[in-house]
Amino acid sequence: MMKATVYHGTRDVRLESVPDPKLREATDAIVRVTRAAICGSDLWFYRGVVEREPGERTGHEFIGIVEEVGAAVRTVKPGDAVIAPFAIGDGTCAYCLQGLQTSCEHGSFWGDDANGAQAELVRVPYADGTLAVMHEAMRDNDELLADAATLCDVMATGHHGATTAGAGNGGTVIVVGDGAVGLCAVLSAARVHRAERVIAVGHNAARLRIAADFGANDCLDSHDPQTLDRLLEMTKGGAPSIVEAVGNEESFNLAIAAARPGGTVTFVGVPHNVKLPDLRSIFLKNLSLRGGLAPARAYIEPLMAACVAGQIHPGRVFDRRISLEHVAEGYAVMDQRSAIKVLLNPGA
Amino acid sequence: MMKATVYHGTRDVRLESVPDPKLREATDAIVRVTRAAICGSDLWFYRGVVEREPGERTGHEFIGIVEEVGAAVRTVKPGDAVIAPFAIGDGTCAYCLQGLQTSCEHGSFWGDDANGAQAELVRVPYADGTLAVMHEAMRDNDELLADAATLCDVMATGHHGATTAGAGNGGTVIVVGDGAVGLCAVLSAARVHRAERVIAVGHNAARLRIAADFGANDCLDSHDPQTLDRLLEMTKGGAPSIVEAVGNEESFNLAIAAARPGGTVTFVGVPHNVKLPDLRSIFLKNLSLRGGLAPARAYIEPLMAACVAGQIHPGRVFDRRISLEHVAEGYAVMDQRSAIKVLLNPGA
Repeated sequence: MMKATVYHGTRDVRLESVPDPKLREATDAIVRVTRAAICGSDLWFYRGVVEREPGERTGHEFIGIVEEVGAAVRTVKPGDAVIAPFAIGDGTCAYCLQGLQTSCEHGSFWGDDANGAQAELVRVPYADGTLAVMHEAMRDNDELLADAATLCDVMATGHHGATTAGAGNGGTVIVVGDGAVGLCAVLSAARVHRAERVIAVGHNAARLRIAADFGANDCLDSHDPQTLDRLLEMTKGGAPSIVEAVGNEESFNLAIAAARPGGTVTFVGVPHNVKLPDLRSIFLKNLSLRGGLAPARAYIEPLMAACVAGQIHPGRVFDRRISLEHVAEGYAVMDQRSAIKVLLNPGA
Repeated sequence: MMKATVYHGTRDVRLESVPDPKLREATDAIVRVTRAAICGSDLWFYRGVVEREPGERTGHEFIGIVEEVGAAVRTVKPGDAVIAPFAIGDGTCAYCLQGLQTSCEHGSFWGDDANGAQAELVRVPYADGTLAVMHEAMRDNDELLADAATLCDVMATGHHGATTAGAGNGGTVIVVGDGAVGLCAVLSAARVHRAERVIAVGHNAARLRIAADFGANDCLDSHDPQTLDRLLEMTKGGAPSIVEAVGNEESFNLAIAAARPGGTVTFVGVPHNVKLPDLRSIFLKNLSLRGGLAPARAYIEPLMAACVAGQIHPGRVFDRRISLEHVAEGYAVMDQRSAIKVLLNPGA
């Protein structure tokens, strides 16, 4: 038996004893989790905003050590330290091969099929396609292990937003949202893409301080009614690249309004209650509105190299470390916004 | 006094005698209209779907001969044959210089300021920025003059849709809509961009025959409930480039559903009653949703060259020619869909 986190209802997740997962397909691996995380998107079901079946396992971000592999697995072996992206992919279909693993023809997600990541053990389908082997230098370094845990989702997602919004083109990048994904988008724009100027928009002073450390040149308060005017003034009419990292109607509209004609707005979270995005402005200003679901697997190796080189340390978004045993407390502190993001250490 | 078309109310436009326009700024020109057109978007106010003030002049597509220029005008002179895009631009601001004249800092539109194009004479602000001088070979050739009149809007708009949707990348392009803009998008994708395959989706057999003549490899019926499945089957999961040329919720959703993961959907008409575009699919499939308002001015010269070379003849979308005197009849036949697009010859 092992421990795994199970959803029971609104604001009710529990660590429970469940059977150990076993290899099912020859392409499976079993991984012992060494770090897992709680995601901002986990709060949607935790708060009852999106439905989830009671009894389902939770968690989609983890790194760990391979314990066992199926007969067909070729690229990972027992003892390897690995990073798992939030989406499972076969690694061989046309979408995986073009780096769009989230559209994998055989893709699925953690938590489906009683296989959540906030647990001691996880069964990994398509282990060759899904898992990335961790850089040797990361394995025993606590800071780098925290960095590694961000590559499962939050840093990969922020980087996807910055990349697809055109941060690499060199102009100004505006990031709307100071949650973990927004902060990682700032880090990607400033330190990976080396954008000319990065403006962070949020409403939490502590988080905006991290944005500044991550390379934001300016930090603005999203609750200030002058913010849009200031953004337009600072950018002489709008920025070419905007990352929308909140997902509600207000943030969508700010992102679209702050975009320069001809610019790109990428949204990287599932949109909630965005009833009427401003299609008229998208039309009149010739904007590109881009989704969204990051193919994290495609970014793990390059971002891992940037972490090992010390170019980025996205693990700083973990401002609370909690043992797996206290996973319920981890959800609670994120729900109360007293933590940006919680790192779970199953062995603690 | 000259004749101009004036809006009076739903399904009520009239040709009336009004004062001749006069030069107002040194950058103005006065142009005698030789061909004007009625646009599908004119039907929105004609049908009362969007509001318009009674007494306003109508029309935004015209070609003509320059009669008079202000003291500061340098690039056109009396006697020049010219093509006017549907948006006025100064030609010197950052947006005009980057080919996004629809976002011109001093931009405006025909019809504003008692200056509609369905008239005998038009005052052209920023004549240097706005007007393109017609190729000599076009001036006295009736077929090429019809082609020229499409460059004001409809062919430029279809071309903008095909271009920004990535038709130049060579894969399959799906065009949703068989109105004049949709047909021009087909023509651009097939004969300008030479896309590998072009699929037209519409519901009017006569228009789809023109789509086939314009280079569509396949034409599907938008009212057939099997159409989406057929598109996905024909493209093995969706096309990388989609042009949405209808502007309602049904066509938006078909366009998004038929897009391949990672693909681009460009919409080229003002969206009407699109309450809830499928943002979730845009997110999950990593689509780009791109607007829209074509910077026609940027495309006039290259498309004019393609017309003169015989590579494209977009003027075929004009299936009815009517004298300016009978402009009201022109609106009526387009409203009844008995004509795709009406060419008005003020001198007829």
